[in-house]
Amino acid sequence: MSNEKSFEQRVRDSFEKQSFMKTIGAELTSVQQGYVEVRLPANSGLLQQNGFVHAGAVSAIADTAAGYAAMTLLPQLADVLTVEFKINLLSPARGEYLVARGKVIRSGKQLSVSSVDVFAISGGEEKCVATLLATIAHRS
Amino acid sequence: MSNEKSFEQRVRDSFEKQSFMKTIGAELTSVQQGYVEVRLPANSGLLQQNGFVHAGAVSAIADTAAGYAAMTLLPQLADVLTVEFKINLLSPARGEYLVARGKVIRSGKQLSVSSVDVFAISGGEEKCVATLLATIAHRS
Amino acid sequence: MSNEKSFEQRVRDSFEKQSFMKTIGAELTSVQQGYVEVRLPANSGLLQQNGFVHAGAVSAIADTAAGYAAMTLLPQLADVLTVEFKINLLSPARGEYLVARGKVIRSGKQLSVSSVDVFAISGGEEKCVATLLATIAHRS
Amino acid sequence: MSNEKSFEQRVRDSFEKQSFMKTIGAELTSVQQGYVEVRLPANSGLLQQNGFVHAGAVSAIADTAAGYAAMTLLPQLADVLTVEFKINLLSPARGEYLVARGKVIRSGKQLSVSSVDVFAISGGEEKCVATLLATIAHRS
Repeated sequence: MSNEKSFEQRVRDSFEKQSFMKTIGAELTSVQQGYVEVRLPANSGLLQQNGFVHAGAVSAIADTAAGYAAMTLLPQLADVLTVEFKINLLSPARGEYLVARGKVIRSGKQLSVSSVDVFAISGGEEKCVATLLATIAHRS
Repeated sequence: MSNEKSFEQRVRDSFEKQSFMKTIGAELTSVQQGYVEVRLPANSGLLQQNGFVHAGAVSAIADTAAGYAAMTLLPQLADVLTVEFKINLLSPARGEYLVARGKVIRSGKQLSVSSVDVFAISGGEEKCVATLLATIAHRS
Repeated sequence: MSNEKSFEQRVRDSFEKQSFMKTIGAELTSVQQGYVEVRLPANSGLLQQNGFVHAGAVSAIADTAAGYAAMTLLPQLADVLTVEFKINLLSPARGEYLVARGKVIRSGKQLSVSSVDVFAISGGEEKCVATLLATIAHRS
Repeated sequence: MSNEKSFEQRVRDSFEKQSFMKTIGAELTSVQQGYVEVRLPANSGLLQQNGFVHAGAVSAIADTAAGYAAMTLLPQLADVLTVEFKINLLSPARGEYLVARGKVIRSGKQLSVSSVDVFAISGGEEKCVATLLATIAHRS
Protein backbone atom coordinates (compact mmCIF):
# COMPACT_ATOMS: atom_id res chain seq x y z
CA MET A 1 0.00 0.00 0.00
CA SER A 2 1.41 3.28 -1.06
CA ASN A 3 1.43 6.56 0.78
CA GLU A 4 2.04 8.40 -2.44
CA LYS A 5 -0.28 11.20 -3.30
CA SER A 6 -1.03 12.26 -6.84
CA PHE A 7 0.36 15.63 -7.84
CA GLU A 8 -3.20 16.92 -7.94
CA GLN A 9 -3.82 15.84 -4.37
CA ARG A 10 -0.57 17.42 -3.19
CA VAL A 11 -1.49 20.72 -4.83
CA ARG A 12 -5.04 20.61 -3.44
CA ASP A 13 -3.82 19.83 0.08
CA SER A 14 -1.34 22.68 -0.03
CA PHE A 15 -3.89 25.12 -1.45
CA GLU A 16 -6.22 24.25 1.45
CA LYS A 17 -3.53 25.45 3.86
CA GLN A 18 -3.39 28.90 2.24
CA SER A 19 -5.69 30.93 4.48
CA PHE A 20 -5.21 33.92 2.17
CA MET A 21 -6.94 32.11 -0.69
CA LYS A 22 -9.96 31.55 1.59
CA THR A 23 -9.92 35.19 2.72
CA ILE A 24 -10.14 36.46 -0.84
CA GLY A 25 -12.49 33.68 -1.98
CA ALA A 26 -10.21 32.00 -4.53
CA GLU A 27 -10.76 28.43 -5.75
CA LEU A 28 -8.52 25.91 -7.45
CA THR A 29 -10.39 25.02 -10.62
CA SER A 30 -7.90 22.91 -12.57
CA VAL A 31 -4.73 21.00 -11.75
CA GLN A 32 -2.93 19.28 -14.61
CA GLN A 33 0.70 18.38 -15.23
CA GLY A 34 2.46 21.69 -15.68
CA TYR A 35 -0.77 23.69 -15.53
CA VAL A 36 -2.92 25.17 -12.74
CA GLU A 37 -5.98 27.39 -12.84
CA VAL A 38 -7.25 29.58 -9.98
CA ARG A 39 -10.63 31.35 -10.07
CA LEU A 40 -11.50 34.48 -8.12
CA PRO A 41 -15.02 35.99 -7.96
CA ALA A 42 -14.61 39.77 -8.23
CA ASN A 43 -16.36 40.48 -4.96
CA SER A 44 -16.70 43.91 -3.40
CA GLY A 45 -13.95 43.41 -0.82
CA LEU A 46 -11.16 43.09 -3.38
CA LEU A 47 -11.17 46.49 -5.05
CA GLN A 48 -8.84 49.45 -5.47
CA GLN A 49 -9.93 53.11 -5.58
CA ASN A 50 -11.57 52.93 -9.03
CA GLY A 51 -13.60 49.79 -8.41
CA PHE A 52 -11.27 47.41 -10.28
CA VAL A 53 -9.86 44.30 -8.62
CA HIS A 54 -6.70 45.38 -6.75
CA ALA A 55 -3.36 44.49 -8.36
CA GLY A 56 -2.49 42.72 -5.11
CA ALA A 57 -5.45 40.35 -5.46
CA VAL A 58 -4.67 39.77 -9.14
CA SER A 59 -1.07 39.04 -8.17
CA ALA A 60 -2.14 36.71 -5.37
CA ILE A 61 -4.02 34.31 -7.63
CA ALA A 62 -1.43 34.58 -10.40
CA ASP A 63 1.41 33.81 -7.97
CA THR A 64 -0.52 30.87 -6.54
CA ALA A 65 -1.16 29.46 -10.04
CA ALA A 66 2.54 29.92 -10.90
CA GLY A 67 3.80 28.09 -7.83
CA TYR A 68 1.37 25.19 -8.01
CA ALA A 69 1.91 24.70 -11.74
CA ALA A 70 5.59 24.21 -10.83
CA MET A 71 4.68 21.81 -8.00
CA THR A 72 2.81 19.45 -10.36
CA LEU A 73 6.14 18.55 -11.99
CA LEU A 74 8.10 17.98 -8.77
CA PRO A 75 8.64 14.79 -6.80
CA GLN A 76 6.68 13.89 -3.67
CA LEU A 77 7.30 16.11 -0.64
CA ALA A 78 8.85 18.95 -2.60
CA ASP A 79 7.41 22.31 -1.70
CA VAL A 80 7.54 25.51 -3.73
CA LEU A 81 8.47 29.06 -2.71
CA THR A 82 8.22 32.11 -4.95
CA VAL A 83 11.62 33.76 -5.41
CA GLU A 84 10.31 36.66 -7.46
CA PHE A 85 7.72 37.63 -10.03
CA LYS A 86 6.93 40.42 -12.45
CA ILE A 87 3.41 41.28 -13.47
CA ASN A 88 2.06 43.59 -16.17
CA LEU A 89 -1.44 44.87 -15.54
CA LEU A 90 -2.73 45.11 -19.11
CA SER A 91 -6.30 46.31 -18.56
CA PRO A 92 -8.53 47.17 -15.59
CA ALA A 93 -9.54 43.93 -13.85
CA ARG A 94 -13.33 44.05 -13.77
CA GLY A 95 -16.02 41.50 -14.48
CA GLU A 96 -17.80 38.72 -12.68
CA TYR A 97 -14.66 36.80 -11.90
CA LEU A 98 -11.00 36.40 -12.76
CA VAL A 99 -9.20 33.26 -13.86
CA ALA A 100 -5.43 32.86 -13.52
CA ARG A 101 -3.99 30.22 -15.87
CA GLY A 102 -0.44 29.25 -15.02
CA LYS A 103 1.90 27.00 -16.98
CA VAL A 104 5.48 25.97 -16.42
CA ILE A 105 7.94 27.15 -19.04
CA ARG A 106 11.02 25.66 -17.41
CA SER A 107 11.28 23.00 -14.73
CA GLY A 108 14.87 22.72 -13.49
CA LYS A 109 16.54 21.00 -10.59
CA GLN A 110 16.31 23.83 -8.09
CA LEU A 111 14.18 26.39 -9.89
CA SER A 112 11.09 26.54 -12.09
CA VAL A 113 9.84 29.39 -14.24
CA SER A 114 6.10 29.80 -14.73
CA SER A 115 4.07 32.07 -16.95
CA VAL A 116 0.53 33.07 -15.98
CA ASP A 117 -2.19 34.94 -17.84
CA VAL A 118 -5.09 36.38 -15.86
CA PHE A 119 -8.43 36.80 -17.60
CA ALA A 120 -11.50 38.77 -16.52
CA ILE A 121 -14.76 37.09 -17.41
CA SER A 122 -17.80 39.28 -17.99
CA GLY A 123 -21.02 38.16 -19.69
CA GLY A 124 -19.31 35.04 -20.97
CA GLU A 125 -16.52 37.00 -22.62
CA GLU A 126 -12.88 36.73 -21.61
CA LYS A 127 -10.27 39.47 -21.64
CA CYS A 128 -6.63 39.10 -20.68
CA VAL A 129 -6.01 41.67 -17.93
CA ALA A 130 -2.58 40.69 -16.63
CA THR A 131 0.44 38.55 -17.39
CA LEU A 132 2.97 37.32 -14.82
CA LEU A 133 6.38 35.69 -15.07
CA ALA A 134 7.66 34.01 -11.89
CA THR A 135 10.74 32.22 -10.61
CA ILE A 136 9.93 29.45 -8.13
CA ALA A 137 12.39 27.72 -5.78
CA HIS A 138 12.01 24.04 -4.88
CA ARG A 139 12.28 23.04 -1.24
CA SER A 140 12.53 19.50 -0.04
CA MET B 1 -11.90 79.60 -0.17
CA SER B 2 -10.01 76.84 -1.84
CA ASN B 3 -11.19 73.37 -2.74
CA GLU B 4 -7.63 72.17 -2.93
CA LYS B 5 -6.72 69.17 -0.89
CA SER B 6 -3.25 68.50 0.42
CA PHE B 7 -1.44 65.58 -1.19
CA GLU B 8 -1.78 63.73 2.10
CA GLN B 9 -5.55 64.19 2.11
CA ARG B 10 -5.81 63.03 -1.51
CA VAL B 11 -3.83 59.89 -0.75
CA ARG B 12 -5.83 59.18 2.40
CA ASP B 13 -9.17 59.68 0.60
CA SER B 14 -8.11 57.32 -2.19
CA PHE B 15 -6.80 54.71 0.24
CA GLU B 16 -10.18 54.76 2.02
CA LYS B 17 -11.80 53.71 -1.27
CA GLN B 18 -9.62 50.59 -1.56
CA SER B 19 -11.85 47.89 -0.10
CA PHE B 20 -9.03 45.39 -0.48
CA MET B 21 -6.89 47.27 2.05
CA LYS B 22 -9.75 46.98 4.57
CA THR B 23 -10.22 43.28 3.78
CA ILE B 24 -6.61 42.49 4.58
CA GLY B 25 -6.40 44.96 7.49
CA ALA B 26 -3.80 47.35 6.03
CA GLU B 27 -3.35 50.91 7.33
CA LEU B 28 -1.72 53.98 5.86
CA THR B 29 0.85 54.98 8.47
CA SER B 30 2.84 57.73 6.77
CA VAL B 31 2.31 60.02 3.77
CA GLN B 32 5.12 62.40 2.89
CA GLN B 33 6.24 64.00 -0.36
CA GLY B 34 7.57 61.13 -2.43
CA TYR B 35 7.16 58.61 0.38
CA VAL B 36 4.32 56.41 1.67
CA GLU B 37 4.23 53.73 4.35
CA VAL B 38 1.60 50.98 4.66
CA ARG B 39 1.36 48.69 7.71
CA LEU B 40 -0.15 45.20 7.69
CA PRO B 41 -0.70 43.12 10.85
CA ALA B 42 0.29 39.53 9.99
CA ASN B 43 -3.09 38.10 10.89
CA SER B 44 -4.06 34.48 10.42
CA GLY B 45 -6.14 35.07 7.28
CA LEU B 46 -3.19 36.22 5.17
CA LEU B 47 -1.01 33.13 5.07
CA GLN B 48 0.35 30.71 2.48
CA GLN B 49 0.87 26.98 3.03
CA ASN B 50 3.88 27.33 5.38
CA GLY B 51 2.37 29.96 7.65
CA PHE B 52 4.20 32.94 6.13
CA VAL B 53 2.33 35.98 4.84
CA HIS B 54 1.28 35.21 1.23
CA ALA B 55 3.32 36.88 -1.54
CA GLY B 56 0.03 38.30 -2.82
CA ALA B 57 -0.59 40.15 0.46
CA VAL B 58 3.02 41.37 0.57
CA SER B 59 2.63 42.56 -3.03
CA ALA B 60 -0.68 44.25 -2.27
CA ILE B 61 0.74 46.60 0.38
CA ALA B 62 3.95 47.16 -1.59
CA ASP B 63 1.99 48.06 -4.74
CA THR B 64 -0.25 50.40 -2.75
CA ALA B 65 2.77 52.14 -1.21
CA ALA B 66 4.38 52.45 -4.67
CA GLY B 67 1.32 54.04 -6.28
CA TYR B 68 0.54 56.48 -3.48
CA ALA B 69 4.17 57.55 -3.15
CA ALA B 70 3.89 58.54 -6.84
CA MET B 71 0.58 60.33 -6.22
CA THR B 72 2.11 62.63 -3.58
CA LEU B 73 4.15 64.31 -6.32
CA LEU B 74 1.31 64.75 -8.82
CA PRO B 75 -1.06 67.69 -9.33
CA GLN B 76 -4.61 67.80 -7.95
CA LEU B 77 -7.05 65.33 -9.51
CA ALA B 78 -4.38 63.09 -10.98
CA ASP B 79 -4.93 59.44 -10.25
CA VAL B 80 -2.40 56.59 -10.40
CA LEU B 81 -2.61 53.17 -11.99
CA THR B 82 0.04 50.46 -11.72
CA VAL B 83 1.42 49.50 -15.14
CA GLU B 84 3.64 46.72 -13.84
CA PHE B 85 5.83 45.69 -10.95
CA LYS B 86 8.49 43.18 -10.07
CA ILE B 87 8.96 41.88 -6.55
CA ASN B 88 11.72 39.77 -5.00
CA LEU B 89 10.69 37.84 -1.92
CA LEU B 90 13.94 37.89 0.05
CA SER B 91 12.94 36.02 3.20
CA PRO B 92 9.82 34.39 4.62
CA ALA B 93 7.39 37.13 5.68
CA ARG B 94 6.63 36.36 9.31
CA GLY B 95 6.38 38.49 12.42
CA GLU B 96 3.81 40.64 14.16
CA TYR B 97 3.31 42.93 11.23
CA LEU B 98 4.77 44.07 7.93
CA VAL B 99 5.62 47.60 6.85
CA ALA B 100 5.94 48.58 3.18
CA ARG B 101 8.02 51.73 2.66
CA GLY B 102 7.69 53.18 -0.82
CA LYS B 103 9.63 56.03 -2.34
CA VAL B 104 9.58 57.59 -5.79
CA ILE B 105 12.78 57.23 -7.77
CA ARG B 106 11.52 58.97 -10.90
CA SER B 107 8.51 61.25 -11.34
CA GLY B 108 7.96 61.96 -15.03
CA LYS B 109 5.17 63.53 -17.01
CA GLN B 110 3.18 60.37 -17.71
CA LEU B 111 4.96 57.75 -15.62
CA SER B 112 6.53 57.38 -12.20
CA VAL B 113 8.87 54.70 -10.94
CA SER B 114 8.72 53.73 -7.28
CA SER B 115 10.89 51.47 -5.16
CA VAL B 116 9.46 49.74 -2.08
CA ASP B 117 11.07 47.72 0.68
CA VAL B 118 8.86 45.55 2.85
CA PHE B 119 10.00 44.80 6.40
CA ALA B 120 8.72 42.20 8.86
CA ILE B 121 8.69 43.40 12.45
CA SER B 122 9.06 40.84 15.21
CA GLY B 123 9.89 41.62 18.85
CA GLY B 124 10.92 45.15 17.88
CA GLU B 125 13.37 43.94 15.25
CA GLU B 126 13.03 44.67 11.56
CA LYS B 127 14.02 42.45 8.67
CA CYS B 128 13.71 43.31 4.99
CA VAL B 129 11.60 40.51 3.46
CA ALA B 130 10.83 41.88 0.00
CA THR B 131 11.74 44.58 -2.48
CA LEU B 132 9.51 45.85 -5.28
CA LEU B 133 10.12 48.07 -8.31
CA ALA B 134 6.98 49.48 -9.97
CA THR B 135 6.02 51.58 -12.99
CA ILE B 136 2.99 53.79 -12.34
CA ALA B 137 0.88 55.58 -14.96
CA HIS B 138 -0.70 58.98 -14.26
CA ARG B 139 -4.35 59.49 -15.16
CA SER B 140 -6.06 62.86 -15.16
CA MET C 1 2.36 61.24 -54.16
CA SER C 2 2.62 60.12 -50.61
CA ASN C 3 5.53 60.44 -48.22
CA GLU C 4 4.14 57.67 -46.08
CA LYS C 5 6.41 54.81 -45.29
CA SER C 6 5.19 51.32 -44.58
CA PHE C 7 5.59 50.14 -40.99
CA GLU C 8 8.22 47.73 -42.22
CA GLN C 9 10.23 50.52 -43.79
CA ARG C 10 9.99 52.64 -40.65
CA VAL C 11 11.25 49.77 -38.51
CA ARG C 12 14.06 48.96 -40.94
CA ASP C 13 15.17 52.62 -41.14
CA SER C 14 15.22 52.91 -37.35
CA PHE C 15 17.08 49.61 -36.93
CA GLU C 16 19.75 50.91 -39.34
CA LYS C 17 20.38 53.80 -36.95
CA GLN C 18 21.12 51.47 -34.03
CA SER C 19 24.92 51.28 -34.11
CA PHE C 20 24.80 48.75 -31.28
CA MET C 21 23.02 46.21 -33.49
CA LYS C 22 25.86 46.54 -36.03
CA THR C 23 28.50 46.22 -33.30
CA ILE C 24 27.08 42.91 -32.13
CA GLY C 25 26.20 41.71 -35.65
CA ALA C 26 22.42 41.53 -35.27
CA GLU C 27 20.06 41.49 -38.25
CA LEU C 28 16.38 42.23 -38.63
CA THR C 29 14.97 39.06 -40.19
CA SER C 30 11.20 39.60 -40.08
CA VAL C 31 8.90 42.59 -39.65
CA GLN C 32 5.16 41.92 -39.58
CA GLN C 33 2.24 43.67 -37.94
CA GLY C 34 2.74 43.16 -34.23
CA TYR C 35 5.73 40.86 -34.73
CA VAL C 36 9.48 41.37 -35.20
CA GLU C 37 12.35 38.90 -35.38
CA VAL C 38 16.03 39.70 -34.75
CA ARG C 39 18.83 37.23 -35.50
CA LEU C 40 22.24 37.21 -33.80
CA PRO C 41 25.12 34.94 -34.84
CA ALA C 42 26.75 33.67 -31.63
CA ASN C 43 30.16 35.02 -32.50
CA SER C 44 33.17 34.90 -30.20
CA GLY C 45 32.96 38.54 -29.12
CA LEU C 46 29.60 38.15 -27.37
CA LEU C 47 30.39 35.71 -24.60
CA GLN C 48 30.41 35.63 -20.81
CA GLN C 49 32.90 33.74 -18.64
CA ASN C 50 31.58 30.24 -19.49
CA GLY C 51 31.43 30.69 -23.23
CA PHE C 52 27.67 31.30 -23.46
CA VAL C 53 26.25 34.39 -25.13
CA HIS C 54 26.21 37.16 -22.49
CA ALA C 55 22.83 38.01 -20.93
CA GLY C 56 23.42 41.59 -22.07
CA ALA C 57 23.61 40.54 -25.73
CA VAL C 58 20.56 38.30 -25.35
CA SER C 59 18.72 41.22 -23.73
CA ALA C 60 19.85 43.61 -26.48
CA ILE C 61 18.20 41.66 -29.31
CA ALA C 62 15.15 40.82 -27.20
CA ASP C 63 14.66 44.47 -26.25
CA THR C 64 15.07 45.53 -29.89
CA ALA C 65 12.48 42.97 -31.03
CA ALA C 66 10.09 44.12 -28.27
CA GLY C 67 10.32 47.79 -29.20
CA TYR C 68 10.03 47.33 -32.96
CA ALA C 69 7.12 44.90 -32.64
CA ALA C 70 5.34 47.75 -30.80
CA MET C 71 6.35 50.24 -33.50
CA THR C 72 4.67 48.21 -36.26
CA LEU C 73 1.27 49.04 -34.72
CA LEU C 74 1.86 52.78 -34.24
CA PRO C 75 1.08 55.67 -36.56
CA GLN C 76 3.69 57.35 -38.80
CA LEU C 77 6.42 59.28 -36.97
CA ALA C 78 5.82 57.63 -33.63
CA ASP C 79 9.00 56.43 -32.01
CA VAL C 80 9.38 53.85 -29.24
CA LEU C 81 11.39 53.94 -26.03
CA THR C 82 11.76 51.04 -23.60
CA VAL C 83 10.44 51.93 -20.16
CA GLU C 84 11.46 48.67 -18.53
CA PHE C 85 11.83 44.98 -19.15
CA LYS C 86 12.25 41.74 -17.25
CA ILE C 87 14.08 38.76 -18.70
CA ASN C 88 14.39 35.18 -17.49
CA LEU C 89 17.46 33.34 -18.76
CA LEU C 90 16.08 29.82 -19.03
CA SER C 91 19.08 27.94 -20.38
CA PRO C 92 22.66 28.73 -21.39
CA ALA C 93 22.58 30.63 -24.70
CA ARG C 94 24.84 28.62 -26.99
CA GLY C 95 24.54 27.51 -30.57
CA GLU C 96 25.20 28.88 -34.03
CA TYR C 97 22.90 31.81 -33.63
CA LEU C 98 20.07 33.23 -31.55
CA VAL C 99 16.69 34.42 -32.75
CA ALA C 100 14.54 36.83 -30.73
CA ARG C 101 10.85 36.68 -31.65
CA GLY C 102 8.83 39.56 -30.27
CA LYS C 103 5.09 40.05 -30.36
CA VAL C 104 2.85 42.76 -28.97
CA ILE C 105 0.46 41.65 -26.27
CA ARG C 106 -1.08 45.07 -25.63
CA SER C 107 -0.98 48.17 -27.80
CA GLY C 108 -2.39 51.14 -25.87
CA LYS C 109 -2.43 54.86 -26.44
CA GLN C 110 0.78 55.73 -24.65
CA LEU C 111 2.24 52.33 -23.82
CA SER C 112 2.69 48.92 -25.43
CA VAL C 113 3.58 45.62 -23.80
CA SER C 114 5.61 43.10 -25.79
CA SER C 115 6.59 39.53 -25.07
CA VAL C 116 9.74 38.04 -26.61
CA ASP C 117 11.11 34.51 -26.69
CA VAL C 118 14.77 34.02 -27.58
CA PHE C 119 15.79 30.73 -29.18
CA ALA C 120 19.26 29.26 -29.66
CA ILE C 121 19.66 27.37 -32.94
CA SER C 122 22.18 24.58 -33.08
CA GLY C 123 22.36 21.93 -35.81
CA GLY C 124 18.90 22.91 -37.03
CA GLU C 125 17.34 22.46 -33.59
CA GLU C 126 15.78 25.28 -31.64
CA LYS C 127 15.75 25.73 -27.87
CA CYS C 128 14.08 28.54 -25.97
CA VAL C 129 16.85 30.13 -23.86
CA ALA C 130 15.18 33.30 -22.59
CA THR C 131 11.84 35.06 -22.29
CA LEU C 132 11.37 38.81 -21.90
CA LEU C 133 8.40 41.00 -21.01
CA ALA C 134 8.76 44.71 -21.82
CA THR C 135 6.85 47.96 -21.39
CA ILE C 136 7.38 50.39 -24.27
CA ALA C 137 6.53 54.11 -24.31
CA HIS C 138 5.34 55.84 -27.48
CA ARG C 139 6.93 59.14 -28.43
CA SER C 140 5.62 61.41 -31.13
CA MET D 1 51.71 28.25 0.07
CA SER D 2 48.06 28.72 -0.70
CA ASN D 3 46.30 28.51 -4.03
CA GLU D 4 43.46 30.62 -2.71
CA LYS D 5 42.62 33.68 -4.66
CA SER D 6 41.12 36.77 -3.11
CA PHE D 7 37.52 37.47 -4.09
CA GLU D 8 38.78 40.45 -6.05
CA GLN D 9 41.16 38.29 -8.06
CA ARG D 10 38.44 35.74 -8.77
CA VAL D 11 36.10 38.45 -10.04
CA ARG D 12 38.85 40.06 -12.14
CA ASP D 13 39.86 36.71 -13.67
CA SER D 14 36.25 35.91 -14.56
CA PHE D 15 35.63 39.39 -15.99
CA GLU D 16 38.68 38.93 -18.25
CA LYS D 17 36.99 35.88 -19.76
CA GLN D 18 33.90 37.87 -20.78
CA SER D 19 34.65 38.71 -24.41
CA PHE D 20 31.45 40.77 -24.54
CA MET D 21 32.83 43.24 -21.99
CA LYS D 22 35.87 43.76 -24.25
CA THR D 23 33.67 44.14 -27.32
CA ILE D 24 31.69 46.97 -25.75
CA GLY D 25 34.72 48.48 -23.98
CA ALA D 26 33.63 47.97 -20.38
CA GLU D 27 36.08 48.01 -17.46
CA LEU D 28 35.88 46.70 -13.92
CA THR D 29 36.59 49.77 -11.78
CA SER D 30 35.89 48.58 -8.24
CA VAL D 31 35.54 45.20 -6.53
CA GLN D 32 34.66 45.21 -2.84
CA GLN D 33 32.84 42.76 -0.59
CA GLY D 34 29.24 42.83 -1.80
CA TYR D 35 29.90 45.66 -4.26
CA VAL D 36 31.14 45.88 -7.86
CA GLU D 37 31.43 48.80 -10.25
CA VAL D 38 31.64 48.57 -14.06
CA ARG D 39 32.45 51.57 -16.26
CA LEU D 40 31.44 51.92 -19.91
CA PRO D 41 32.60 54.78 -22.16
CA ALA D 42 29.58 55.86 -24.25
CA ASN D 43 31.29 55.25 -27.56
CA SER D 44 29.62 55.56 -30.93
CA GLY D 45 29.15 51.82 -31.46
CA LEU D 46 26.77 51.39 -28.53
CA LEU D 47 23.81 53.51 -29.54
CA GLN D 48 20.12 53.06 -30.33
CA GLN D 49 18.16 55.03 -32.94
CA ASN D 50 18.14 58.34 -31.00
CA GLY D 51 21.82 58.38 -30.13
CA PHE D 52 21.43 57.18 -26.53
CA VAL D 53 23.31 54.15 -25.22
CA HIS D 54 21.22 51.07 -26.13
CA ALA D 55 19.23 49.46 -23.31
CA GLY D 56 21.06 46.22 -24.13
CA ALA D 57 24.45 47.80 -23.41
CA VAL D 58 23.13 49.40 -20.22
CA SER D 59 21.73 46.01 -19.19
CA ALA D 60 25.00 44.26 -20.03
CA ILE D 61 27.10 46.27 -17.58
CA ALA D 62 24.35 46.28 -14.95
CA ASP D 63 23.97 42.49 -15.18
CA THR D 64 27.73 42.04 -14.96
CA ALA D 65 27.93 44.25 -11.86
CA ALA D 66 25.02 42.34 -10.29
CA GLY D 67 26.59 38.93 -10.83
CA TYR D 68 30.09 39.84 -9.69
CA ALA D 69 28.81 41.68 -6.61
CA ALA D 70 27.19 38.34 -5.68
CA MET D 71 30.42 36.45 -6.42
CA THR D 72 32.44 38.53 -3.93
CA LEU D 73 30.46 36.93 -1.09
CA LEU D 74 30.75 33.32 -2.29
CA PRO D 75 33.34 30.68 -1.45
CA GLN D 76 36.28 29.80 -3.74
CA LEU D 77 35.35 28.14 -7.04
CA ALA D 78 31.71 29.18 -6.94
CA ASP D 79 30.54 30.68 -10.18
CA VAL D 80 27.50 32.87 -10.77
CA LEU D 81 24.77 32.69 -13.40
CA THR D 82 21.99 35.22 -13.87
CA VAL D 83 18.56 33.64 -13.43
CA GLU D 84 16.62 36.77 -14.31
CA PHE D 85 16.65 40.53 -14.02
CA LYS D 86 14.34 43.49 -14.37
CA ILE D 87 15.58 46.91 -15.41
CA ASN D 88 13.85 50.29 -15.47
CA LEU D 89 15.34 52.78 -17.92
CA LEU D 90 14.74 56.02 -16.02
CA SER D 91 16.28 58.57 -18.40
CA PRO D 92 18.07 58.55 -21.75
CA ALA D 93 21.58 57.14 -21.25
CA ARG D 94 23.87 59.80 -22.68
CA GLY D 95 27.09 61.35 -21.47
CA GLU D 96 30.79 60.60 -21.58
CA TYR D 97 30.47 57.29 -19.83
CA LEU D 98 28.18 55.14 -17.73
CA VAL D 99 28.92 53.56 -14.36
CA ALA D 100 26.97 50.55 -13.06
CA ARG D 101 27.15 50.19 -9.27
CA GLY D 102 25.94 46.84 -8.03
CA LYS D 103 25.41 45.75 -4.45
CA VAL D 104 24.12 42.52 -2.95
CA ILE D 105 20.87 42.82 -1.04
CA ARG D 106 20.55 39.14 -0.18
CA SER D 107 23.20 36.42 -0.25
CA GLY D 108 21.59 33.03 0.30
CA LYS D 109 22.77 29.47 -0.05
CA GLN D 110 21.77 28.92 -3.67
CA LEU D 111 20.66 32.37 -4.77
CA SER D 112 21.72 35.99 -4.40
CA VAL D 113 19.74 39.13 -5.15
CA SER D 114 21.61 42.22 -6.33
CA SER D 115 20.48 45.78 -6.93
CA VAL D 116 22.31 47.97 -9.46
CA ASP D 117 22.04 51.67 -10.27
CA VAL D 118 23.50 52.90 -13.55
CA PHE D 119 24.67 56.49 -13.75
CA ALA D 120 25.52 58.60 -16.79
CA ILE D 121 28.45 60.96 -16.21
CA SER D 122 28.57 64.15 -18.23
CA GLY D 123 30.81 67.15 -17.46
CA GLY D 124 31.52 65.75 -14.00
CA GLU D 125 27.82 65.45 -13.13
CA GLU D 126 26.10 62.15 -12.44
CA LYS D 127 22.54 61.20 -13.27
CA CYS D 128 20.87 57.89 -12.45
CA VAL D 129 19.62 56.53 -15.78
CA ALA D 130 18.62 52.97 -14.89
CA THR D 131 18.01 50.64 -11.97
CA LEU D 132 18.18 46.85 -12.13
CA LEU D 133 17.14 44.07 -9.74
CA ALA D 134 18.63 40.63 -10.45
CA THR D 135 18.41 37.07 -9.14
CA ILE D 136 21.72 35.20 -9.39
CA ALA D 137 22.23 31.43 -9.07
CA HIS D 138 25.37 29.99 -7.49
CA ARG D 139 27.16 27.16 -9.29
CA SER D 140 29.92 25.11 -7.77
